[in-house]
Formats: sequence, structure tokens, C-alpha cells
Amino acid sequence: MSSTTALPAYTSYKNIIVSSPNPFVAHVEINRPKKLNAFTQELWLEFGRVFKQLSGDEDVRAVVVSGAGDRAFTAGLDVQSASSDGILIGSQADIAKKAKLVRNHIEEFQDSIGAMEKCEKPVICVLHGVSIGLAIDIACCADIRICASNTRFAVKEVDIGMAADIGTLARLPKLVGSTSWVKDVCLTARDFSAQEALSVGFVSQVHEDKQAAVQAAVALATTLADKSPVAVQGTKELLNHGRDHTVAESLRYTQVWNAAAVQGKDFSLALMSGLKKTKPRFEKL
Amino acid sequence: MSSTTALPAYTSYKNIIVSSPNPFVAHVEINRPKKLNAFTQELWLEFGRVFKQLSGDEDVRAVVVSGAGDRAFTAGLDVQSASSDGILIGSQADIAKKAKLVRNHIEEFQDSIGAMEKCEKPVICVLHGVSIGLAIDIACCADIRICASNTRFAVKEVDIGMAADIGTLARLPKLVGSTSWVKDVCLTARDFSAQEALSVGFVSQVHEDKQAAVQAAVALATTLADKSPVAVQGTKELLNHGRDHTVAESLRYTQVWNAAAVQGKDFSLALMSGLKKTKPRFEKL
Amino acid sequence: MSSTTALPAYTSYKNIIVSSPNPFVAHVEINRPKKLNAFTQELWLEFGRVFKQLSGDEDVRAVVVSGAGDRAFTAGLDVQSASSDGILIGSQADIAKKAKLVRNHIEEFQDSIGAMEKCEKPVICVLHGVSIGLAIDIACCADIRICASNTRFAVKEVDIGMAADIGTLARLPKLVGSTSWVKDVCLTARDFSAQEALSVGFVSQVHEDKQAAVQAAVALATTLADKSPVAVQGTKELLNHGRDHTVAESLRYTQVWNAAAVQGKDFSLALMSGLKKTKPRFEKL
Amino acid sequence: MSSTTALPAYTSYKNIIVSSPNPFVAHVEINRPKKLNAFTQELWLEFGRVFKQLSGDEDVRAVVVSGAGDRAFTAGLDVQSASSDGILIGSQADIAKKAKLVRNHIEEFQDSIGAMEKCEKPVICVLHGVSIGLAIDIACCADIRICASNTRFAVKEVDIGMAADIGTLARLPKLVGSTSWVKDVCLTARDFSAQEALSVGFVSQVHEDKQAAVQAAVALATTLADKSPVAVQGTKELLNHGRDHTVAESLRYTQVWNAAAVQGKDFSLALMSGLKKTKPRFEKL
Amino acid sequence: MSSTTALPAYTSYKNIIVSSPNPFVAHVEINRPKKLNAFTQELWLEFGRVFKQLSGDEDVRAVVVSGAGDRAFTAGLDVQSASSDGILIGSQADIAKKAKLVRNHIEEFQDSIGAMEKCEKPVICVLHGVSIGLAIDIACCADIRICASNTRFAVKEVDIGMAADIGTLARLPKLVGSTSWVKDVCLTARDFSAQEALSVGFVSQVHEDKQAAVQAAVALATTLADKSPVAVQGTKELLNHGRDHTVAESLRYTQVWNAAAVQGKDFSLALMSGLKKTKPRFEKL
Amino acid sequence: MSSTTALPAYTSYKNIIVSSPNPFVAHVEINRPKKLNAFTQELWLEFGRVFKQLSGDEDVRAVVVSGAGDRAFTAGLDVQSASSDGILIGSQADIAKKAKLVRNHIEEFQDSIGAMEKCEKPVICVLHGVSIGLAIDIACCADIRICASNTRFAVKEVDIGMAADIGTLARLPKLVGSTSWVKDVCLTARDFSAQEALSVGFVSQVHEDKQAAVQAAVALATTLADKSPVAVQGTKELLNHGRDHTVAESLRYTQVWNAAAVQGKDFSLALMSGLKKTKPRFEKL
Repeated sequence: MSSTTALPAYTSYKNIIVSSPNPFVAHVEINRPKKLNAFTQELWLEFGRVFKQLSGDEDVRAVVVSGAGDRAFTAGLDVQSASSDGILIGSQADIAKKAKLVRNHIEEFQDSIGAMEKCEKPVICVLHGVSIGLAIDIACCADIRICASNTRFAVKEVDIGMAADIGTLARLPKLVGSTSWVKDVCLTARDFSAQEALSVGFVSQVHEDKQAAVQAAVALATTLADKSPVAVQGTKELLNHGRDHTVAESLRYTQVWNAAAVQGKDFSLALMSGLKKTKPRFEKL
Repeated sequence: MSSTTALPAYTSYKNIIVSSPNPFVAHVEINRPKKLNAFTQELWLEFGRVFKQLSGDEDVRAVVVSGAGDRAFTAGLDVQSASSDGILIGSQADIAKKAKLVRNHIEEFQDSIGAMEKCEKPVICVLHGVSIGLAIDIACCADIRICASNTRFAVKEVDIGMAADIGTLARLPKLVGSTSWVKDVCLTARDFSAQEALSVGFVSQVHEDKQAAVQAAVALATTLADKSPVAVQGTKELLNHGRDHTVAESLRYTQVWNAAAVQGKDFSLALMSGLKKTKPRFEKL
Repeated sequence: MSSTTALPAYTSYKNIIVSSPNPFVAHVEINRPKKLNAFTQELWLEFGRVFKQLSGDEDVRAVVVSGAGDRAFTAGLDVQSASSDGILIGSQADIAKKAKLVRNHIEEFQDSIGAMEKCEKPVICVLHGVSIGLAIDIACCADIRICASNTRFAVKEVDIGMAADIGTLARLPKLVGSTSWVKDVCLTARDFSAQEALSVGFVSQVHEDKQAAVQAAVALATTLADKSPVAVQGTKELLNHGRDHTVAESLRYTQVWNAAAVQGKDFSLALMSGLKKTKPRFEKL
Repeated sequence: MSSTTALPAYTSYKNIIVSSPNPFVAHVEINRPKKLNAFTQELWLEFGRVFKQLSGDEDVRAVVVSGAGDRAFTAGLDVQSASSDGILIGSQADIAKKAKLVRNHIEEFQDSIGAMEKCEKPVICVLHGVSIGLAIDIACCADIRICASNTRFAVKEVDIGMAADIGTLARLPKLVGSTSWVKDVCLTARDFSAQEALSVGFVSQVHEDKQAAVQAAVALATTLADKSPVAVQGTKELLNHGRDHTVAESLRYTQVWNAAAVQGKDFSLALMSGLKKTKPRFEKL
Repeated sequence: MSSTTALPAYTSYKNIIVSSPNPFVAHVEINRPKKLNAFTQELWLEFGRVFKQLSGDEDVRAVVVSGAGDRAFTAGLDVQSASSDGILIGSQADIAKKAKLVRNHIEEFQDSIGAMEKCEKPVICVLHGVSIGLAIDIACCADIRICASNTRFAVKEVDIGMAADIGTLARLPKLVGSTSWVKDVCLTARDFSAQEALSVGFVSQVHEDKQAAVQAAVALATTLADKSPVAVQGTKELLNHGRDHTVAESLRYTQVWNAAAVQGKDFSLALMSGLKKTKPRFEKL
Repeated sequence: MSSTTALPAYTSYKNIIVSSPNPFVAHVEINRPKKLNAFTQELWLEFGRVFKQLSGDEDVRAVVVSGAGDRAFTAGLDVQSASSDGILIGSQADIAKKAKLVRNHIEEFQDSIGAMEKCEKPVICVLHGVSIGLAIDIACCADIRICASNTRFAVKEVDIGMAADIGTLARLPKLVGSTSWVKDVCLTARDFSAQEALSVGFVSQVHEDKQAAVQAAVALATTLADKSPVAVQGTKELLNHGRDHTVAESLRYTQVWNAAAVQGKDFSLALMSGLKKTKPRFEKL
């Protein structure tokens, strides 16, 4: 990944690197490798801002996310940092007052991570090495999950005395096919392997190591970036909408969505290119 | 399948053949084999009408659907035909006016294909050969999916510059166990094989070729046709209801549904036959 | 399991045995082995009461459920007993009147079985031997499903002329990853094996025989009982809430739930123990 | 109303007259005055077809509905006709079989009446004289309700031994502001007057007699027909969508709807006309 | 009301009197007049049991609820009693532990009051004198609300430092027509009068004094008790279902509900009585 | 209002003034009186930020909103400003591209106005003079609406060729008691008076002029600011939650919410003050 082009518009982030390995493809790296990419509040606020920016950036059509360094995607929350901010631990506030602080704190945290799901471009998450706690919350917000064979997964929150609250419990059961398995890993906080993640459908590819996984992700992102952005972004939107609605509601929403989308040039361009066997070039979206 | 009995009540359809390989079993064939069974508007309107008729036909208790000929279940939308009707492509209407036309057009199309899901009898879909685009929308409306080993599946719409809008994006994620896989195939429009379809749970049987798959489907349909229609049709209804409701709502709906259903003769007849080890014969429903 | 300690608070049940193989672990056995643990109304009412009691019992942190004896988890409804109560069969009441009786009867039955799902402690269900009909309804209410290799599963209700109405049709499709498979087994009422149950994700472990399966379940329950009850019970609650809500609603509910939960001592205790590498002892909940 | 222009496209209906009192305004009259406009199955099927046709007719922008003759909007279901078709009364079918017939019968009836709600053009319902039973189901599907001072309203179904099933119980509580009043009139089946209907908000205007009420409705419809059809039809759609969705969902749906709608010419035309104080003429929709 | 017949089946309640002023009519009186009918836990548990019993009692077709004595319907929670049980006030439990106790406590309380809403027979609530706090929660569970002119209403909970949690905030906005008014009275905890309650639609009748209000309620209940129980109870069920569902879902549920209900004798009996102008006598339900 | 104390923390806004007429009460004024307080994008973005700030400001417990000057609350969107930004009018972008821009534009606008609804403190909106278009969208986000007798209301959007998209169509039908009236004013865009707004429940008080209305609003806000913030803010949250959920869901959410809230000091403080007849002083929240 050494020859990637750094994206000038994304140089203000302290804990995140955004490069562009291929045209229209962005690679987001969580960049605190010495701390196993553990998340401070500063980091998760940046994480939210990056994905909001990517969502509106017409030069980006597909995104790859990974951790920086070889050891971890992320080890989750930076517990020392969390201890010192006083919100979750140690304050002497009135219980009702503290409940309000905690609610607002969790909401801000959820919103920051959830910005990846709301990003209108498809996001491919590459898990590798230590990928526990918040790593799962983040991965659940991606569209496609790929991992290295050495990935150590765990829904770790029960072991720090709390129910996971940044999204894993809301999203994971809707991503994989066995609730018995979901409850097992969420209640026991046990590790699970890349192979197990593949067999339950949490990830859809396992690669030899991080480098191979990132390469595969970039290749996949490049494929997506070559396609009609109207079609790709509409497909993401409609799939996400469908998760939280009945089929009848999704069908209606689809009618209204496509009523504008198919009037764009991408549709006739792609259709004609298909008939003429030429490769279409799509306008920015 | 040469000795099937043609069903007299279904002879008016131009593009669809309905035969009856066994008592109470109907076999619906999409019949434009020279065009890889591609769908014109005429065909999809017939498709909707056939399933509405089957739903109300008390001589039918289970339905098998396949494509006619060896090459394709269906190659999807007949693009040439679609181009010429002017709704999706080429009209000069005002944008808001065209948006209305497109919405109504998609709704009619969705309703026609969705008639298979609404059909009160169980439907077994046999996929084989080319099964792309609309083929997946259709298969998602069936109850049980079986395929031939040569099936070439693809959610193809992204490659014609649009998000799939006849139901795949609404239904597919609720049918299989890996959202990562769903997004992969929907966003990339790549082909996937019978084996892959089986491993993610999209189909539940793979057979050597189309003939074997149709035979297995007819055998399965015949099994269903031997059982209590009250029980079978109630089971289909309650499973479909459950997909779009909370567990609490489904349980309540089930109470109300069975309050009438178990008062029918099928229940006592089946119960007694079970105790007496005899084979029950159920009345038409 | 011979050396388990019987739980004194649970000795009033006629058809159910509750023992405690390990501290904070309860083992519930359905105890009509001569009748293949078939359910009479008396039994299901007791089943509901047991789980309501366990839910409020601060000396219990995890529950294992199995059938007594080697032959069956349960063969389902005790048909002879059901025939004699006149609600479902044989009464001469007015149709609307009987509809009301049937609705209320099903509701009471659903509520009794559903008490296992509502129980605030995690429940591990061990299926073994004959596990048909109501066995599936019950298993669907558990958090984690484990089985013996000899388990004979079937969603049997269609064969007695009715749609399953105690919860299988509402819950099963949300527990496993292939709707095509769900509809197959629910419509055909065919047997399926431990291996098949594992491959579709219905169970997450298969063991050689009942004894090994129960041992594994007790070990797993013991692991859960060692962890923070606030974390474990919160995780169960949030996962169950998530099944029936959109992601956005689950995230909000999670904020409100954890606003109180993380103010408990378990959170800081577990956090500190993690940092200090000591083993925490949690207060009763 | 004698000088209205009959609409040629609507002459095939036997029990319904459609005229056009003003450009782009349609007046639908239920036309069985000798039978107090009571509904046979033939009539309600025509009713459904008329509104489907009006929905797609670009020469119609607003609709007024009334009964023909002076005595009744409608006295509801034609009981004699209903008795003779054997679906609701008198058949000897198996209970489960008859339950299916009844369900399908009610669904067809609901769909026919509901076509008025689904009609994309605003519908003003003029109630007058006898307006009981089905009259309320119909009125609930309109957008705006106006009545004559002599109107005799009643939710009459309880007095024929059944819960109203064509929509009153689903819609009425969402149309008016007092559930205590709704339950009073629905449970007692008592008459209520025009003045009472006005005071609870069921109707929004009361006029001296039928003629004045129809004139007011036509004037209101004419006002609507002068406005942008894109704006008027969008407003109807979004208000109806809002009734059945959360505010958050409605807001999102509104974004997607208007994304196409405001690109139409009506928006810039109306905006410019407003600034220039001219009267815009909108294209057909 | 002195000549009412006490109902023998309801004599075991300590704080509640159930009499029968007319055949098939039950009158429930909250009976702690010296304490302004304030609620202890014992009382609310009895309240829940009474309505569960009434729901299943085929000799009861309509219910009237009032307070005993002239001074109050109820002054709400018995604060002294509540203080002494230690659940809400004064316990030293861990915050997470106490949160669980509070949740379970509120749930039990909600379920007891909500039993009135779940009661399958229509309930008419007569408010009079002091009717504050819990009085509003209770009234919101009734079907029809009537009051005496001296009633003093208030949603009082804000003045004891808490948000009302037994149902007022969930139900009141769905019962009346002005959210601005609802928020005013809920946020300020101010008193409002019988006249104000009438004008916003919270009650549908105001009578001179308690005696007149009870008489009117009994007369109304008697009217309901004369009608088909299948029709009356079905109407209550469908109206309550409609409150919490979309119109489309209610229509479907209605189809399934009436599929059994109209097969009962009440329907043909009422229909024939209507044609023959005779008074029908309905069987018990 | 001349003696109000300006709030130092809110001096950075260009188009909005925030003062504090009483302790814990904030008065927000939309401040473009020469332009009838019409909204530019700059203004609505400020509007969203103000309410986000107020929501987190523990020195504010209740908020009053009005327009500056005597002529208008607001005349709605500043059409000239909107024309010049090119998003809604005049751009030459591809239809699909422009659809995305419009969606994102509406979303930003909705979010800014909706910040008032999300503000955790109660908001009292004072309408006066010209109050059309966006004025209604804003008012619908307030908790309590009060107006001056000279207010000129109109849901004006249809007259500029579009369906209102900032929230009126989603919220208004849920605030008032007559859908017939809602559709009348939304479809015709006609003016309605203070008296009409009062009679349908849109506002709950009408005062002689703006000054009197603002005084009444400040008095009401002061009353709310004297009460327990835990109780008041919890009541707002639970009422808003209830609007978009079933009763069963609201009851559950209430349990979880109050599990923390009643452990705060406000509850015991208010309870004790009530018993001792003293006036409680609550801590900041």
C-alpha cells in the first residue's frame, strides 16, 4: 500500500489517515498503532467527521477501512482515556443527572461510529489482528466485511461489566444467520476466529494476512468505483432501508427512489453500453 | 415432464404454460425460451394474473415454477421491449410527470411479480441456467428455492445503471444469513454459482440438472399437496406475516388466525388419522 | 448430573425438576419421561411459573433446560390430554364463542412457553432424542441451543392439520439464516437431524449424547454465571429488544438502558479487575 | 348541478355517474337512489374501478363524491343482496373453508372502497340524508368531508351483529379528536347529527342542504384544480404516508419524494408567478 | 345505586366492590373512600385481578367504574404506603440493582392498571371529585369517559418530581385532539375542569353530579349489554388494535378476526331481527 | 420585554437573539424583522445550533420562541435567497445528481428546524402576525403553541408549487383533532385565524396581541422552570416517544427511563416537599 496517493482534503485528522489507492477509492486507516488503535473520544469524533466528509465527496465512490499497523484493527475503547473523562466512571453527580450525561455520551459515540453506515458510498471493512469490542461495533456499520486469517474477534463488553452499547447488539443479529451463535459470543465475550466469522457469514472473505486482505478490499472497491454511482449508492440505500422496514414499505420507497434515479444519465448510459458492449464512464455524483 | 396434464383453466396465457404433473400440483413455466424467457410487460402482467388465479383455485395446493427450455429460468427484463415503451427511456416528459409514470410503472411491475408471494398456496421455484436480474426478484417471492447445478445467478441491475426495484433488495437480505454476502452480490452484480447459493441458504437443494431439479420440486409439491390445505396455507401465511412483524404481533395474529382454522375438519381429521395411523383425505380449500 | 443440588425453592412443581449443578446455575428438567415429556396443560402452566420464578431469583444467573430421561426432550403436546379438555376438539359451542375460547387458550399457552424468553437470565436449551412439535417452540425461546447427536427434530404441526401456533412460525425465521430451509421444514413437517440443525445455525453445538450436551450446557452456564449479572442480563435484554425494533430504536433504547446500568458497581468493578488482572466477585442482581 | 358536462370516459358504469361541473373537477354520484344508494357487490366493484380510473386520468385534478337523489348518501350494504350471495350467510361450508371465503370477500370489499383513498387526486365527500354503515367507511377514505345539515350519521354495524370491517374502525379514530366519542358511536351504533360531526371534527363544513353542500364541495374542488397538481398530489401522498409512519420516517420519505417533484416545472412556474403576481397554468399530471 | 345486586363471584376483594345494577352490567367501585380511594399496592393488584376476571365472565357484557363515596374517584397513589415499601424511596441498593427493582415494580403496576384496557368487555369510566395522578392513568384505559361537573382533574406526577409512568403519557395524546393541550396539562400538572375535559374530547359527557354521571354510565352500559356481544367485543378489539397499527395492518387483522366472528349465530340473528323488527336475544360469550 | 437579561453564551448568533426574562427561562427571537423574519440558510443553520446549545445548557429549563418585531413570527422561506443558491432552482445538473443535492438540502433544513423538537427542555412557541409556510413547520416542533389574536396562519407551500417538506405534513395531523381540517388547510393553502387555530387545538391559548402572548408564554415557562427538571424533561421525552410508538412500547420505554430518573434527588425532594408543604429547590440538570 506504499504507493497510495494521500488525499489532500483529509489531512487535518490527527488519528486517521485517508489515502486513495485507486481513482474514486478512499482508504481510511485508524492510526494509533502503538495503542492498538484504541479509541479515544477525539478519535471517534474524527471517525464520524471523516465519514460525513466522504459521504459528500464526489471524488470518492467506495471506501476501504482498516487499522494502521500489523497488530490490530482496533482493541476497542481506550479504557485509560475513558476513565479519565469522568463521564462513565467516578463522577459524583446525582443519579438522574449522571443518567442524562451517560445517555448523551453514548448518543454522541453511536452517532460518530454510525456515520460510517450513513455514508452514502459503500464501505468495505478489513479486520485484522486484534479486533475486539468497538471493532465489532464498527465492522457492523460496514457494508462488506473481509478479514485476515489472524484476526482475533470478540464482543468484549460483558467482560468490562456492561452491555455493548455502540451498536453491536442492535446490528449483529441482523447481519448473520444464527442467533444462537450471536448470543453465545455476545454473552460469553469469548474470542472467535476468522474461520468462525466466515462460517456464520459475518465476513465474506478471509485472506492470508492483512496485506492480502487490504489488497482484496481495494480491488473490490475499485470494481464498485467503476460502476454507476447512481446504481451503487441507490443499492446501498435501499438495502439499508430494507433492514428496518417491512417488504411492503421497502417496495414503495423503492418506487419513489427510482422515480428520480432512473431519470439520471447513468441508467441510459449503462443500458446503451451494455447493448453496445462498450465501457461507460459515469459522471460524478 | 412429458406426461403432465395440461390444466384447461389456464390455456389463455400467451407466455406461460400451466400443467399439472400430479393431482393438486400446478407447474408454471415461463415460456419465451427463444428469448431466454426474458420478460416483456405482457409477460409480467400474465405472471401476476396466473398467480392470482392459482391462489383462488381449490384444485391447486402447491405450485412449481420454472423456465421453459434448457437455457434459462429467465435472463430478466427484455431490454429491447423495455426501451420501446418509452416509460423508462427516452420520453421528453416533465421530470415530475415522468417521476409519476415511473412510480406507477414500477408499482404495477412489483405487484405482478409479488402476486406469487401473495398466492395462498406454497410455491417452489426451480432455478436453472441463466437466472439473472428479474430471476432473483421472482425467486425471492417463492417459498422454497431449488436449483440445477448449472444455474448462473446474478443480481444484475447495477450493471444497467440502476438499483434493483422489483423486490430483490427488499427481500433477499431477509432470506439468507449473511448481509456481507448480500451486499457483495448486489453491489458488484457478479455471478454466483449454485453451490454458493446453497452455502448461503438462498436455495435449499441443488440438483444435477434442470430435469432433476424439476422432478425434486414436483415431488416436494406432491408431498405438500397430500397434507391438510388448512395447515399448509396457514403455515405459509403465518411465516410471511412473521417476516414483517414483531414476535408479539405475530403471536397475537396467530391466535386469531387459528381461532377459525382449528375449527375446520382438517384438524380433527388429521389428528384422528395420526392416532389411527390412517391416511387422511382432506376437502378442497 | 447425579450430584446436583436440588433447589429448595422449586420443590412444589409436579412435572418439573429444578436443580443447581453449580453456584448461580439452575437446571430445569421437563419431567414426564414415561410420556416422552409430552405437555399437558398442567405442565405448561408450571413451565411458565418456573421461568417467572427463575427470572426474579437473585441466586440464579444462568439456566439450562433439558428433558428428563434419555428418550426425549419432548414429544410435544400430549394429544390425549388435549383431546379431553374439549377446547380444541369436540365442543359444540357457537363458532364465534369457540373462536374466543381458542384464542384465549392459545394465548395462555403462548404466554407460558414465552416466559422462558422473558426470563431475565440467559437460558441454554439442550435438545436430545425426540424433539418435535412444541420442542421447537420451546427451543426458539431459549438464548442458546445445544443438542445431542441423536436429536430428532421436526416442526410437526402440519401433520396434525394445523399451523404451529405456540411461536415456532414467529421466531424460527428470525433465528436461522435460510428462509428456504425454514419453509421446507415447516411446510413438510419432515424430520431433520442434529447435523442439519447445526449447519443452518439453529443449534450452535452438537455433542455425542445427551449427557455430554448437558455437561457442555452447564459449563457454558457456569461461565455466564461468573460474569457481571448487570452485563449479562443487559446483553440479553438488548439483543431481544433488537430483534423486534429498527436499529435506530435499539440504539436509543440502549442509551436509556445503560444510563442506569453503568452506574452500578459491576461496571467499575469489572473494569478495575480487568486492569488489575484480578477476578471480580459481583453482587446479586 | 343540471349543467354539468358528463364525462365520456366514464359512461360504462351502471350504478355510478361521473360528470364534470368544472374543468379538471369530477363529480362521482352513487346512483341507486330508489334503494337509498345501498351497495351491492356490483356497485362496490364499480366504485373501486371508478377511482382507479380517476387516479390515472390526467384531466381530473379533484373529485367530489355524493349520493344521487335527495334521500341518502348511502344506507350502506344492500342487505337483501348480501343475503343472497351466500358468502356471509347461509352457506354450509366447512368452518375453515368459509373463513377463507369470508377473508377474501372482505378483502375485495375493502380494496374497492379503499381505492378512493389510494386515488392520487384529492377527494371531497359530501354526506347528506341517510349516511349510515358503509357511508362512514367511505367517508373515512375521503380527504375532506362536508355535509348537509339533514345528514343522519351512524356506525351501524354493531346492530347487525358484527364489527364494522370495511375500514371505519381502522380509520375513524385517526380522523377525529376524541376516542371517547369514537367508541361511543361505534359501540352503541347510535345516530349522530351534522352538528355533532362538525364539533368532533369528522366533517369540516355543514351546509343547509345537499345542494349547498355539493356547491361548496365543487367550489373547493375547483380551487384545488387551479393549483399545481404536483404540489396538490404530493401533499395528499405525504399526509397519507404520515398517518401510518413515525415523524422520522415521514421526513425521510418527504426528502426522497420532493427530490423529483421540485425538479418539475410546476415549482419554478408557481414560484415565478408568485413573484410576478401572475396566475400560473400548470401542465397535466 | 342502592338497589344494585352484589355479584357473588366478586366478594373476595378487600378494596373493590363489584355489583350488578342491571343484567350483564357490572359496576366496579374503588373502595377506600376515607383515603380518597388512594391506591396501595394491594389495591392495584386487586384492580388488575378484577378486570381479568370480568374479561372472562360471560355474565358480564359491559362495565362501569367509579370511586366509592362522594369525594374522589381517586387521589392517585397512596404516597405514605408507597414510601414504606422501600422500592421507590429510601433503599440503599446498588444503582443497577435498584434500577431493576424499579423497572419490575413499574411493570407490575402498569400491567395491573392495563388489565382494564385488556378486558374484552367495554368499560365506561365515571370520574368525579378528586381525579388526579393515577386517576388519569386509569381513565385512559377505559373505552368511554363520563364525568361529574365537580371533577377536579390533574396529571399530577410532575409535582412529585417524576414523569407519569403508569400510562397517561403513552395513552392521553392518542385519546384527545390537541397535543398542545396535552403537553400543557402534563408539564404544568395544573388542574383542569370537567368542562375543559369535555371541550378537548377527553370525556364525552358531563353530568350534574356523581349520581347522575353513574346513572348515565349504567344506562349506556345497559344499552351495550343488550347488543350482540360478538359485535361489541369485536368492535372494542378492532378499535384498540387500530390505535397501534397502520390502516393496512388493521384492515388485514379485521379480515381475519371477522372470518370467525361472522360465522357465529349473533350475526344472522341480529340481521334477521333487523329485517323482522324483532328484538334479538344473544347467547353468552 | 425590555428588561430581559441577555444571555452571554448566546451572543454569537447573527439572526437570533436569546435573552432570559426569568431565571432558567430563555427567550429565543428570530431576528430579521425587516424581512418579516424570513429564513435564509444562514438563519436556519443558526436556529438548529441555538436549540442544540439550549438543550445542553443546564441554566435553561424552559424556552419561549417568538419573532422579533410586530409584523411577523416569520413569513417563511426567504424566496429570493433560496433562488440564488441554485439548489432548488436553476441548476443544470443531471437529474439523479440534482435529486441527491435536493435530498441532502432538505435533510439539513429538516434537521435544523427539528433541533427544536429534540431540545430536551420544553419549548413554547408564540405565533403572531404573519405566520405562514415555515412558521407552521417550526410551530409543529414546539411543545405548546400560544398565539396573538392577529396571527395570520397558512400552510402556504402548495401555492409555490410544492408539498411542504420541512415537517408540517408529518407532524400537523398528529397535533390536532380533525384530519378533514388538516387536509383542507394543507391542500388549499388558505389563511386561517387565531380563533380557528384554537378551535381545532393547534394553539392552546389566544391573547390580545403579541406582547400579551409573549408575557403569557414567559409566565408559563417560568412555572415549568420552577418544577423538577428531571420530571419536566422526562415528561417531554416520554410524550414525544409516545407519538411514534405503540402504547406497549411506550410503557416499556417508560419503565427503563424512570428506572434511573426516580433514583435522582428530585423525586424524593419533591415528594417530601409535597408532604411538608414547602417549596423545593431542584439541582441543575
